[in-house]
Amino acid sequence: MSIAEAGEFGLIGRIVSRLGSGSATLLGPGDDAAVVRAADGRVVASTDVLVEGRHFRRDWCGPEDIGHRAAAANLADIAAMGATPTALLVALCVPTGLDVTWAEGLADGLSAEAGLVGATVVGGDTSASPTLTIAVTALGDLGGVAPVRRDGARPGDVVALCGRIGYAAAGLTVLSRGFRTPKLLVDAYRRPDVRYPAGPEAARLGATSMIDVSDGLLQDLGHIAEASVVGIDVRRDSFEPPAQMLDAAKALGVDPYVWLLAGGDDHPLAATFPPGVTLPEHWRVIGSVLDGAGVTVDRKPWTGGTGWDHFR
Amino acid sequence: MSIAEAGEFGLIGRIVSRLGSGSATLLGPGDDAAVVRAADGRVVASTDVLVEGRHFRRDWCGPEDIGHRAAAANLADIAAMGATPTALLVALCVPTGLDVTWAEGLADGLSAEAGLVGATVVGGDTSASPTLTIAVTALGDLGGVAPVRRDGARPGDVVALCGRIGYAAAGLTVLSRGFRTPKLLVDAYRRPDVRYPAGPEAARLGATSMIDVSDGLLQDLGHIAEASVVGIDVRRDSFEPPAQMLDAAKALGVDPYVWLLAGGDDHPLAATFPPGVTLPEHWRVIGSVLDGAGVTVDRKPWTGGTGWDHFR
Repeated sequence: MSIAEAGEFGLIGRIVSRLGSGSATLLGPGDDAAVVRAADGRVVASTDVLVEGRHFRRDWCGPEDIGHRAAAANLADIAAMGATPTALLVALCVPTGLDVTWAEGLADGLSAEAGLVGATVVGGDTSASPTLTIAVTALGDLGGVAPVRRDGARPGDVVALCGRIGYAAAGLTVLSRGFRTPKLLVDAYRRPDVRYPAGPEAARLGATSMIDVSDGLLQDLGHIAEASVVGIDVRRDSFEPPAQMLDAAKALGVDPYVWLLAGGDDHPLAATFPPGVTLPEHWRVIGSVLDGAGVTVDRKPWTGGTGWDHFR
Repeated sequence: MSIAEAGEFGLIGRIVSRLGSGSATLLGPGDDAAVVRAADGRVVASTDVLVEGRHFRRDWCGPEDIGHRAAAANLADIAAMGATPTALLVALCVPTGLDVTWAEGLADGLSAEAGLVGATVVGGDTSASPTLTIAVTALGDLGGVAPVRRDGARPGDVVALCGRIGYAAAGLTVLSRGFRTPKLLVDAYRRPDVRYPAGPEAARLGATSMIDVSDGLLQDLGHIAEASVVGIDVRRDSFEPPAQMLDAAKALGVDPYVWLLAGGDDHPLAATFPPGVTLPEHWRVIGSVLDGAGVTVDRKPWTGGTGWDHFR
């Protein structure tokens, strides 16, 4: 059945029936607005939009995958403030000829990814559109801690990373060259594996700044460097790319460090910590904060490309 | 300068520079997420999306108008819960050839409408897209009161309306027939005049249910009737359409009650109150809640059309 046949309320009904309920949800979908617990007295909020052909392709990802990706991009932003996500709101614009099962799959993916952190989809809106577009807003709770911003890094701090990096970018290259394997990389592009609890953990460990790496490590560290008025140096030897990535890079004639340093979509968290901090193993130290400006790799400028501009 | 020439960060910088700051904003645009005060311990949240060609036309409305409309649609949803809006987040998808001044005008309109209630744009996202799309999320504060839902209307309650109705629908008909006057109606379509403080006021007055009338009065009262498991009867003689609306209706050969009862986009608040309530003058009693189901007009079914389905 197409979405045109299901109608607006038919579509909404089908989506809502697939959403779970969360402990922070005081009033879920079905009214003018949702009501979400904000016990902290503050709410963290972020919006990210995915546009077909620019952020995803339906022949590369199923609807559940795209739901996971759309949710992850937003939930990671909440985690990067040191907060725990509580709720998602979704604006879904769809061509009317699309099958309703696609929208149901998307709802399943959004709901499942949110469920990883106990959050739920509490509301949203739908419209017909020639361009399939998914705008997600995530809300989160700071649990009494100060938000970890981008502007607190200080010379001498260590730079650490939590979560996979380069995998999704490698998967995207693989898919764009017409391949479907290695599965590790393609799956990483389809469904990010984000360490959400590492956000609040970093806040507790005294992180001086933090960011969700969504557009490429060097570009996103550049935002921290600019906001904090510092320089950041990243060490190439701090990365241990998996064999599948090195093999794929060789086969495709790509420098794997372009994936690692400039690739997006994995959503690891990058944070700076005071010198001498003891970090859990899943936070890997990858560099240091310096006096100066900009981001270097082994103290040299990087010339291999830097992330995405969504209008180029 | 086109948006492609300005680039993603150029565009964001231009937009952010035009946004004010509000008392509820603890951390505004520029980080992974915003932080907004939620003193009540709960946050009200709603998302509405506007798609070019379906919800607006650039030849009928300037960018400031569209900003006002996009903000109003969301702010009215917050008011309809009995809450006061605190913040907006905006996902803006734009064709790259669009001039940046258009996006700046949109930001001005969004910001100005939010400013009417002391709210501000605290964050968002931008992307290129072939289809101009504006998804807005509004947040709000209940200030200690219970949210006014759709499911609390009881037989014997009075139905009351606060704000203009039929004006925007009449303006839309006028524009779609190629006219630019009467100014009263065209301007009403371009910029809704929403009585936001009437939402929290209704909650204090004991409203048993409330809704933002966005898709047509009868359709939206139908949502209250369905959720509350009651019938609602609306009295035709309770409306006093202005002379310009009656004149336009006559000139265009339209029944003005189609605009009044089935037209959208004005965003008045409709609420039910216990019998015997004393309402301020700006709340006009338009009908009553009955045992039964569905919405009638002078106790008869309405056959003149009912609101919008965004997929038809």
